[in-house]
Amino acid sequence: MSYKLAFIGFGVVGQGFAQLLEEKKNLLRTGFGLEYTVTAISDPAKGSIYQEEGLDLTQILSLTEKDGNVKGYDRGVKGWDSLRTINEADADVIVEVSPTNIENGEPGISHIRAALGKKKHVITTNKGPIALFYRELAELARRNGVALKFEGTVLSGTPAINLSLDTLAGAVVREIKGIMNGTTNYMLTKMADGQSYETVLKEAQRLGYAETKPDADVKGWDAQAKIVILANVVMGGHLKPKDVPTQGITEITQDDIEKARTDGKRFKLIGHAWKEGSEVKAKVSPVLVGADDFLYHVNGVTNALTFVTDALNKVTIVGPGAGRLETGFSLLVDFLGLHRAFSKR
Amino acid sequence: MSYKLAFIGFGVVGQGFAQLLEEKKNLLRTGFGLEYTVTAISDPAKGSIYQEEGLDLTQILSLTEKDGNVKGYDRGVKGWDSLRTINEADADVIVEVSPTNIENGEPGISHIRAALGKKKHVITTNKGPIALFYRELAELARRNGVALKFEGTVLSGTPAINLSLDTLAGAVVREIKGIMNGTTNYMLTKMADGQSYETVLKEAQRLGYAETKPDADVKGWDAQAKIVILANVVMGGHLKPKDVPTQGITEITQDDIEKARTDGKRFKLIGHAWKEGSEVKAKVSPVLVGADDFLYHVNGVTNALTFVTDALNKVTIVGPGAGRLETGFSLLVDFLGLHRAFSKR
Repeated sequence: MSYKLAFIGFGVVGQGFAQLLEEKKNLLRTGFGLEYTVTAISDPAKGSIYQEEGLDLTQILSLTEKDGNVKGYDRGVKGWDSLRTINEADADVIVEVSPTNIENGEPGISHIRAALGKKKHVITTNKGPIALFYRELAELARRNGVALKFEGTVLSGTPAINLSLDTLAGAVVREIKGIMNGTTNYMLTKMADGQSYETVLKEAQRLGYAETKPDADVKGWDAQAKIVILANVVMGGHLKPKDVPTQGITEITQDDIEKARTDGKRFKLIGHAWKEGSEVKAKVSPVLVGADDFLYHVNGVTNALTFVTDALNKVTIVGPGAGRLETGFSLLVDFLGLHRAFSKR
Repeated sequence: MSYKLAFIGFGVVGQGFAQLLEEKKNLLRTGFGLEYTVTAISDPAKGSIYQEEGLDLTQILSLTEKDGNVKGYDRGVKGWDSLRTINEADADVIVEVSPTNIENGEPGISHIRAALGKKKHVITTNKGPIALFYRELAELARRNGVALKFEGTVLSGTPAINLSLDTLAGAVVREIKGIMNGTTNYMLTKMADGQSYETVLKEAQRLGYAETKPDADVKGWDAQAKIVILANVVMGGHLKPKDVPTQGITEITQDDIEKARTDGKRFKLIGHAWKEGSEVKAKVSPVLVGADDFLYHVNGVTNALTFVTDALNKVTIVGPGAGRLETGFSLLVDFLGLHRAFSKR
């Protein structure tokens, strides 16, 4: 089966996915019977190209590396914006990787609504639209008979969403708890080694883990969006981010950290969703954990999620929470997942 | 979509699956559009019944609890053996949960060959046939257009096989390593607390973790079968159990354990598969791990597997490795998996 893909956004994650598509072209064909062409890319900064017969991805990736954009590509139609690309480019699958906005979900939410409305599958790593509008979008996808997949909104490509929906299908998840933000876990790990908040923040920024404006990570908003997604998608919750009490790591002092160390404990920024009767609740906060707690040993940018279920009790997944190829991989696995669901034997 | 199931074997795991089927009947119908009847059970000790219109599972389970067998069931045709049940009972899905034999795979292998040959889906927790004959059976299933699923052969219902094949699809797994036998991990944990091998073995037997003849666990054969399955299914290996150097825990002395403790280490029985060039190799042996190793903190009957992949580097899953409902759940998730693959929208 052959698919035509259009990329809405072509930043680090989109490029990572494009690289994996190229590297794994043979594996996808021989191992999974899946073929693809990328017919369009639309990114306000990197440039927009539509080429009906399919872009030369190798050239696209080398242009991105060399110039930081794809404007030097010498074929196709240039300059289509995202909505025109979604509506007019010949594509079956929209890869929505525009910048995340967890306040109103734009521009991602408009992209996803338009794509599903045009009966195109959507795979995305964009937390905003899923945290804010999951139920509406899932219903829109169902009504239009297409897939909406978003493994990469939580724990990058480490199985979390598909783990719960597919490999734990039929289990009732009663509680989800874990470390779901790599940046703050890296910072807390370094702070436990004695470095100051300011020093580790600078180091995290230098390594590309934290943004120049680090609020989404250090104030807990990123973890908040993720626990909302998990609570709603996996546990049947109806939460909005504003319903989730959220405290980041900015108020943890070096004294707090010293005292924790003396007590044999570590701070972890924990997202937690649980049931009270039929209602799903969630919160994000720094928690002191001891060495007997598994999460004590999850350090650096690594993430970990524990699912408490009826049939299996606790199942924990540990893996990378961010990264170019790691998050790009989530799109690959979602692409294969929609292929498995929609290609007929 | 409605399925007819026949159980070949009705021991602890089969009963656990039957219990989950009953408890989750509504969830399966409303959440997944899946309905079922169980038309037959065939077990040389518990009794055999075929009832075309479907057995009363509630009564079956209460008989099992009360009498230890289903011989008091008052309807249906009695006394069919396993092969007659596979060949003649009206069933789409064969639940193969006969006793495991990791030397020649019998009787499971004959059951599975017969079922696939009759174009019936097979879901099983039986390690022997999969460790010994995976390639033959996978090819037979493919040729007959039916599913062969066996999540429960490794880590009970904790996602391991489906985790690799579905939620890590497209990733190349370079190495698999972990604790895959709960009984020995329980014993090593207790021995590290100062108890003798003999004492903890008796305790493990009393709790139902170890058999009266504990060789399969303590000599590493169970872990050997599991690493062979993982190596062949997930990494494309061509291993037989005899190709895998295997050392159990019987030669670890109390002195060894004391010395390890002094050094801040613990013994873990580790199954390990890796690539040498294009060849997949594997071994099972006790390994000393320090507190900086994740596996140090996986204790008791809990299991853990780390997959080293190209796109995601390390992903680790931690969860129960045994248990009536936990292993029964693996059959439920495989049943849902074949439903997802074979029911068309």
